Amino acid sequence: MTDDKAKSLDLLFKPKTVAIYDARATARSFIEGFQAQGFDLEHLYLVSSSEEEVFDIKCYKSFTEIPTDTIDLLILAVKRDLLIQALERIFAEKVVNFIHVFTAGTGESDEQGFKIEKGIKEMINRKGISTRVIGPNCMGIYCPSGKIAYLRSFPLEQGHIALVFQSGDLHSKMVKFGSARHGFRFSMGASIGNCVDLQISDFLKYYNDNDETDIICVYFEGFPKLYQDEGTRLFNALKNMKKPVLFINGGKTDRARTAVLTHTGSVGTTQKIWEAIFKQTPVIEVPNSLDDLIDRTYLFSKVINRYKKQGIKEIQYPKGKKTLVILWSGGFGIIATNTLTELGLEMPYFRGETIEKLRKVYPLKIGSLNNPLDLPWISKTQKFLDLSKAAISEDIDLVVLETDAWGNMEGEGFKGYYSNLLQIKEHVESLDKILIIILHQYPDRNRDEFYKMLIKDDFIVYPGLRRAGKSYLALYEYGQKMRNRYN
Amino acid sequence: MTDDKAKSLDLLFKPKTVAIYDARATARSFIEGFQAQGFDLEHLYLVSSSEEEVFDIKCYKSFTEIPTDTIDLLILAVKRDLLIQALERIFAEKVVNFIHVFTAGTGESDEQGFKIEKGIKEMINRKGISTRVIGPNCMGIYCPSGKIAYLRSFPLEQGHIALVFQSGDLHSKMVKFGSARHGFRFSMGASIGNCVDLQISDFLKYYNDNDETDIICVYFEGFPKLYQDEGTRLFNALKNMKKPVLFINGGKTDRARTAVLTHTGSVGTTQKIWEAIFKQTPVIEVPNSLDDLIDRTYLFSKVINRYKKQGIKEIQYPKGKKTLVILWSGGFGIIATNTLTELGLEMPYFRGETIEKLRKVYPLKIGSLNNPLDLPWISKTQKFLDLSKAAISEDIDLVVLETDAWGNMEGEGFKGYYSNLLQIKEHVESLDKILIIILHQYPDRNRDEFYKMLIKDDFIVYPGLRRAGKSYLALYEYGQKMRNRYN
Repeated sequence: MTDDKAKSLDLLFKPKTVAIYDARATARSFIEGFQAQGFDLEHLYLVSSSEEEVFDIKCYKSFTEIPTDTIDLLILAVKRDLLIQALERIFAEKVVNFIHVFTAGTGESDEQGFKIEKGIKEMINRKGISTRVIGPNCMGIYCPSGKIAYLRSFPLEQGHIALVFQSGDLHSKMVKFGSARHGFRFSMGASIGNCVDLQISDFLKYYNDNDETDIICVYFEGFPKLYQDEGTRLFNALKNMKKPVLFINGGKTDRARTAVLTHTGSVGTTQKIWEAIFKQTPVIEVPNSLDDLIDRTYLFSKVINRYKKQGIKEIQYPKGKKTLVILWSGGFGIIATNTLTELGLEMPYFRGETIEKLRKVYPLKIGSLNNPLDLPWISKTQKFLDLSKAAISEDIDLVVLETDAWGNMEGEGFKGYYSNLLQIKEHVESLDKILIIILHQYPDRNRDEFYKMLIKDDFIVYPGLRRAGKSYLALYEYGQKMRNRYN
Repeated sequence: MTDDKAKSLDLLFKPKTVAIYDARATARSFIEGFQAQGFDLEHLYLVSSSEEEVFDIKCYKSFTEIPTDTIDLLILAVKRDLLIQALERIFAEKVVNFIHVFTAGTGESDEQGFKIEKGIKEMINRKGISTRVIGPNCMGIYCPSGKIAYLRSFPLEQGHIALVFQSGDLHSKMVKFGSARHGFRFSMGASIGNCVDLQISDFLKYYNDNDETDIICVYFEGFPKLYQDEGTRLFNALKNMKKPVLFINGGKTDRARTAVLTHTGSVGTTQKIWEAIFKQTPVIEVPNSLDDLIDRTYLFSKVINRYKKQGIKEIQYPKGKKTLVILWSGGFGIIATNTLTELGLEMPYFRGETIEKLRKVYPLKIGSLNNPLDLPWISKTQKFLDLSKAAISEDIDLVVLETDAWGNMEGEGFKGYYSNLLQIKEHVESLDKILIIILHQYPDRNRDEFYKMLIKDDFIVYPGLRRAGKSYLALYEYGQKMRNRYN
């Protein structure tokens, strides 16, 4: 978009009136999504040239018949060859704030499709037209506080994660997997496809000032051919972000950029330019994997919420990489040491005085009074707690505690251990540090029950060390970037 | 061990008589393990200086009282300071084939502990003593066909995976997680700790000729200080392996080698030497992660079983890295392209004639008739099958099909899709190629049901692309190594 057309996206996410045209079978998921979210269906207008009713909702024959002059959000789902003509008619009859062009097969398909996109661009840039457009080739908007969604399965509760994605399916899966795995809740999400008008940068600027949003996730593929200045605009938007932006660059490799052309028809940029962008902005690059994005979002979300719950505005992001590993397993300790140090975390090796201090707390005979702190047989006892706390006090930034389910979760042994875990968490958080529990994933009743307990008690739990380590490093990197900016 | 003491490990894994000394509470997991596996308890002898009975089994006061002259396997669990003295007495009274020294706190602990290990070594190298020892500081042996295990939860059925681990906990978790996640079954497993006598190389040689074993997993930490030639012996054993060996080197980083000293007290070797070893032997290095080991073992096991089931002796390991991705999602297609090509897989981009061929099969209007093959809306139809088969025929080595659970698994849509999957599998396997299904992991009833269906029908299923890609590359690497060796 051109900046003189700048306009709040409020009515895109929280429209008072919505119309769908041409309302047919494809409208189902929108109607179901709106219904599920509790959108006032009296202000949902279906327009169809052929249908009387769609899913029990009356259809208007034309836009003229709709009993409102202003449509906040129009979902346009006509065949591509009818797009321009449909827009002409709509603009002649109504004031439309936002249009979501759902239609696919335009710029990503062929020359003819690209022409259509050019046509749309010209039309909305005409004098007197203030309409803004997302799409074509996208799923559109999700906003629980605006009571809209394009799938009925999306959570109804509002959260603090905002999304802007150049892939509808990834957008949907981020909501689906993220909510199922970690109970993610979202402030707003936009699947924006081929970007004939509104760009990722527009959403970033909006999210940056949006009070409901604390974390922003971006799936980027490339810049639209029609907007040569979006690169600069995106860079400027990223530079000014006051919130964590977790960013997947789908156009990362040469081979992927070839594939992008048939997906959103947009133009990728070489990785070198991206490396410079990631260096000069507080943005955190995430590898090409939805799991990686979910892993990192999880940690950011947990840490931000921890401070918000206490009414603390300034989030304390980690200042160091000094990691202590606590477990009951020599082998996992060695594996953890290799894995975490290879990722770039530090594992201080205790010497001299520190060892003496730990020995005074409890002179362990087997296991290891070092880092990893390998504490066999004592996990249910006060000694476990005392040794852990003593080691954590050695200027540690991150505590990784590896555990497994217990055969008997009713016995005193487990109760003692769990009480120790709760007290270690309290101690770590009182120091503004991070505690991550590693509980491996395998189908088992006790494992699931233990996992649920940990989650209920607000522990941060990962199924594997590497995933935990990478997520922590993203959090640390963000903290470093923000400290460097303001110092 | 010295090679002139070489001796089959048959009676270690399949002992006819077992004794435990000193039988106390620590004996519980062994007794339970033997019971669960169906070991003949009449040939399990508990010896205790203090107890009359342990877990309802009568204890003998001394070795003299045991009604057998030969003990195939003795599990020795006395305090470290009593080890030498106990061995003296035992050797004086019985013929012992194998001893598992369970006792911990020896060489990994301090100088005194190291002296004890030296003492054990000297003693078993005396003239006339043919006893072989595993340990100290280890969990010992698991062998379902020998009816022995050290944990009651270990599977009873025999399988084709053999383990030799320098960590008891990792050994246990490999069995526990592997069986729970993928139904792994094992031929034999050995947790061998500090290696005062029998070494990893001894087990590799034995497994190499063992008919029950097809795949071998190793967790290595370091060479025992007492055996300077084990490096050469291990190298020679590895060079001669006729079966896949998946190898984790716990002594990989400098920092981990420091930690190894307090775990098994063994001496790591710099990664450079290991790189040379991995280059010159058919061994496959696995990163320091049990998940990675399980992932790779899973694929090797599936592929080997596929050929064994058909009575084919020569396994066809993949000859190339050309990967086709099939899915219904532009965004996941882009992510897959980045992920797989960054790992080192190739994703041929279809051009000219190939595109024409695919277009003739079905001229898709949205999605992509290329690689990734993005096939929206048609997955339940014959077109999906035809397009997939046509693309697979383009000299593809690996097919990765990304999928998700269906809302309605009873309808015709799902049935058509599933039938397509089965036929694609048949087609791929008829070409001696590999099909991997990606089904993302999240708690959901339909997802679990779909996953179970796929497993029942013998599909290879991974929860993520990167894990699948890395496992395939291990399989490919092994094939390359074996082809290079014999060509």
